[in-house]
Amino acid sequence: MSDFAAIRAAAERARGRVRRTPLLRAAALDRLAGRRIWVKAECLQVTGSFKARGGWSAISALEPAARERGVIAFSSGNHAQGIAWAAVAHGAPAVIVMPSDAAAVKIDNTRGFGAEVILYDRATGDREALGAEIAEARGLTLIPPYDHPEVIAGQGTVGIEIAEQLAEAGVARADVLVCCGGGGLAAGVALALEGTAPGLRARTVEPAGFDDMARSLAVGERLDNPAATGSICDAILTPRPGAMTFPILRRLAGPGLTVTDEEALRAMALAFTHLRIVLEPGGAVSLAAALFRGNEIEGGDVAVIGSGGNVAPELFAEAIRRFA
Amino acid sequence: MSDFAAIRAAAERARGRVRRTPLLRAAALDRLAGRRIWVKAECLQVTGSFKARGGWSAISALEPAARERGVIAFSSGNHAQGIAWAAVAHGAPAVIVMPSDAAAVKIDNTRGFGAEVILYDRATGDREALGAEIAEARGLTLIPPYDHPEVIAGQGTVGIEIAEQLAEAGVARADVLVCCGGGGLAAGVALALEGTAPGLRARTVEPAGFDDMARSLAVGERLDNPAATGSICDAILTPRPGAMTFPILRRLAGPGLTVTDEEALRAMALAFTHLRIVLEPGGAVSLAAALFRGNEIEGGDVAVIGSGGNVAPELFAEAIRRFA
Repeated sequence: MSDFAAIRAAAERARGRVRRTPLLRAAALDRLAGRRIWVKAECLQVTGSFKARGGWSAISALEPAARERGVIAFSSGNHAQGIAWAAVAHGAPAVIVMPSDAAAVKIDNTRGFGAEVILYDRATGDREALGAEIAEARGLTLIPPYDHPEVIAGQGTVGIEIAEQLAEAGVARADVLVCCGGGGLAAGVALALEGTAPGLRARTVEPAGFDDMARSLAVGERLDNPAATGSICDAILTPRPGAMTFPILRRLAGPGLTVTDEEALRAMALAFTHLRIVLEPGGAVSLAAALFRGNEIEGGDVAVIGSGGNVAPELFAEAIRRFA
Repeated sequence: MSDFAAIRAAAERARGRVRRTPLLRAAALDRLAGRRIWVKAECLQVTGSFKARGGWSAISALEPAARERGVIAFSSGNHAQGIAWAAVAHGAPAVIVMPSDAAAVKIDNTRGFGAEVILYDRATGDREALGAEIAEARGLTLIPPYDHPEVIAGQGTVGIEIAEQLAEAGVARADVLVCCGGGGLAAGVALALEGTAPGLRARTVEPAGFDDMARSLAVGERLDNPAATGSICDAILTPRPGAMTFPILRRLAGPGLTVTDEEALRAMALAFTHLRIVLEPGGAVSLAAALFRGNEIEGGDVAVIGSGGNVAPELFAEAIRRFA
């Protein structure tokens, strides 16, 4: 079960291995938003995204015998790197099933960590079935990207840090905007905030057209996205809210937000200029929401998670050439 | 006088205003260099470079009456922002004399902090004479970019943090590579390392063709650069080593290193891919030296200062398109 105790335990197991990332601010961004924006720079995390947290949590929680047999994961890229890194650091074999259109840097990095990469077609393949089949054949433990208690607990460690860092800054009340694919990060953060900082509230942010979580939260049941591809925010495109994550978010999260791909690119350019960090499109949507959906946010402070920075150089160059 | 006590005092005055920036690592960079590279990410500092440290130190050390009259600085950009930010935060008027070819983002940001900007021609103007004239006319205190005890002390606070962070990581012996224009950062860091971590040694890094400090250290007297412009590393082009900084570096620094502009661009691209930080060319030369001058460095660890990230988007896009 995912609860606050599990998040605390995951944070203990990750001590010294997962980075405590900085909470950044820039006066220029505050002026644009009309409120203070606190950016949790998870792009500076090991492997370049928060997924290292869930990966470390899941692998470190395995029984030794299962760790020795190895793990398998299916992922659009950042989860792949998180699992690959955490598995190799534990001496466990790792097989990663990735969509063939994932950013080359993500595929390269996953292999660089020492994992075996198997590619599938995102539009036609069923990655869950494929992953289950290989896991069965090789005796591997499947680590899903979000519907897994220890993965949710690991991602929740971001929430503990945000609560601590905002408290140090004297901020007790704010929306915490979290990018959302399946909802692992958002659910973990929502649980962490419930446990440590009741004045902070998690809210999901998704790309326009892929707002399954926002629509599902609005009606109270899990709805599908109409398509599987079609946004540059490749890291957070999932078919529907997670079975484990949705009930958590339904109970704890505020209304979901959405932003356009162009707004994500603008947020990447502004983070380049004013924070000097590299965000990928999916990692920039929560900053985009803070900047461009201010009328849907209340209060003088908002926190956002800059969740990852694994982006193709061509796309990043386009973002800063057009909007920086 | 610049000494370790002044650096400690500057660190005390800066508490809560200047950021303790992270010391980052990436396995891929370690593999490229054949040793562990520790990157002090000063691009994440307030104002986007270490210059906020020297600015805060100098302004906070002024007598109240002098602060009320205001300050003036001449700078290729990052010192300008550091002084502008620190002055405005202290309620002091700030006049900044900048070269007309400085990056637009640096000029804009300096104005954005609330400073008055006066432009001059880098090739024909004498910024020191111009600065002194305006300071005299308006009763402003001139804060030079490196030949000033409190500026050197402020920059030295980076060195204290590096020593602490390396000690936490169990590293007691390493070269610490520091980009070098006039030598304020390098001198401050050298003094800080002498005071806290005798196994760490500061070494300057300059752009090829503008290696006045390396040549001066080699012969024991201050030599001029042959030209004033001609490298993309605009933040660290100065006519000659500082009168105050050179004796410090002559006593404490190892042999100076140089890198080419293309190597600086390559380092920017590698920092983009593997650290997800934005470095400007002058801020990337020490990383470039760690990567491409490994045969001039000894030991299994090297620390570098990623000193700033204020770079034109076109130039950053070129770096990552060509080399990422």
